[in-house]
Amino acid sequence: MTKEALFEQIQQKQSFLCVGLDTDIKKIPTHLLDTEDPIFEFNKQIIDATKEFAVAYKPNIAFYEAMGAAGWASLEKTVNYIPKDIFTIADAKRGDIGNTSSLYARAFFDNMNFDSVTVAPYMGSDSVKPFLEFKDKWVILLGVTSNEGGKDFQFLKADGKPLYQQVMETSSRWGSDQNMMYVVGATRPEYLKDIRRIIPNHFLLVPGVGAQGGDLKAVCENGMNDQCGLLINSTRGIIYASSGKDFVEAAHQEARKLQTEMASFL
Amino acid sequence: MTKEALFEQIQQKQSFLCVGLDTDIKKIPTHLLDTEDPIFEFNKQIIDATKEFAVAYKPNIAFYEAMGAAGWASLEKTVNYIPKDIFTIADAKRGDIGNTSSLYARAFFDNMNFDSVTVAPYMGSDSVKPFLEFKDKWVILLGVTSNEGGKDFQFLKADGKPLYQQVMETSSRWGSDQNMMYVVGATRPEYLKDIRRIIPNHFLLVPGVGAQGGDLKAVCENGMNDQCGLLINSTRGIIYASSGKDFVEAAHQEARKLQTEMASFL
Repeated sequence: MTKEALFEQIQQKQSFLCVGLDTDIKKIPTHLLDTEDPIFEFNKQIIDATKEFAVAYKPNIAFYEAMGAAGWASLEKTVNYIPKDIFTIADAKRGDIGNTSSLYARAFFDNMNFDSVTVAPYMGSDSVKPFLEFKDKWVILLGVTSNEGGKDFQFLKADGKPLYQQVMETSSRWGSDQNMMYVVGATRPEYLKDIRRIIPNHFLLVPGVGAQGGDLKAVCENGMNDQCGLLINSTRGIIYASSGKDFVEAAHQEARKLQTEMASFL
Repeated sequence: MTKEALFEQIQQKQSFLCVGLDTDIKKIPTHLLDTEDPIFEFNKQIIDATKEFAVAYKPNIAFYEAMGAAGWASLEKTVNYIPKDIFTIADAKRGDIGNTSSLYARAFFDNMNFDSVTVAPYMGSDSVKPFLEFKDKWVILLGVTSNEGGKDFQFLKADGKPLYQQVMETSSRWGSDQNMMYVVGATRPEYLKDIRRIIPNHFLLVPGVGAQGGDLKAVCENGMNDQCGLLINSTRGIIYASSGKDFVEAAHQEARKLQTEMASFL
């Protein structure tokens, strides 16, 4: 998907909501457990309930890997089910030497037709560039993560500035705002102004609104640019809004609520 | 597997060889393509040919993921086929927030019974610790990687010392030399003395000998400790030693050659 197509969708839906599909067999409504593929069935119904408000879906690959080959099959069905005009993110946090990154790129871009994949920066340029060779596909590189451990290394002063800023400055030269985005956790909106000085035009994928305590307003005020520039992810607040038979309606309402709030910032 | 059991095996076999199973359908001998599961068939024959000399096997997970659900099934069969007294490494370079890392740990340790998994450090403590909660299982954390891009961030001066040293110092407090190892590329043996000052007792997983140009002698002289402390990985030089019907014999010979060299350092 191109940046233009993504922005067009954001304008049409008046939303920059990404729905995380961290689908856990132990958390889905029990009445789904009798279906042939409960994980896919849950995702399908969540997608139907939220696609009016979501511009992106982000399956967290760990949840599928944890189920082995069957989980992989559920993931393939899920990504095929997502409407083609909605941006898809394989939240995989991969990153390896060049020829191995090429294989990960092939797995997510060719075999499964994801639009993007999250990538870890530690191994540097040749671990990222193979993903950038695919037309209209995206790398979403970890910048500032929302978890507690994000503080261990990302804010070390590295050659004069925080490591996350070194990562953004250096890596932004490997691609462009047409094929790279960055993960910036909503739990750290105070860094968004500095980040926007380094990468004014890139989209940011922002997890951590909701269950992790991030503040949507603070993120929008500090992180938005003239093409929106934000994909705000919500997972648990939407997909597990209810654990009963009304989970579809509950997810619909929660997604609508976030979309309405987002529209006010656009 | 415990550290003691690993060292015992090293002494018995007079070897610290790890064989990488980066099995690529486009590179395996063509006569295997008619079998039911060529990837597994290749791995099985490589394992049979080298298990006398190898103390560890390291499937590179990307190669299996690139084949989708079928690849995942080949991986499961492969890890089950490896003799139980040989150390197994899921070379996956995962790392995510806590609950997601727990799922990756479950995928590799519970579902597939790997002894260890490679993990990326960027997201910090809570991305690593969930892997350490499994008894007799190991995290192998990226320290200094062998690829060209390893230079982009790992050697930045972070709060007074190279980032990779910060990573090792900080992370070594999360676990111990009984459940953590570090990746240190053989292409950078000059850093091994500094590394041994920080983590004298940990095992190091050393890729890059052979095809990537690393030097076994330099690595042993600078990196060995009194419990060996090294797992040296070789992949292409062994598994693709021949592309013909004699690939089993060729792999056997190459593994034996490395083992003989290794014995001289023990």
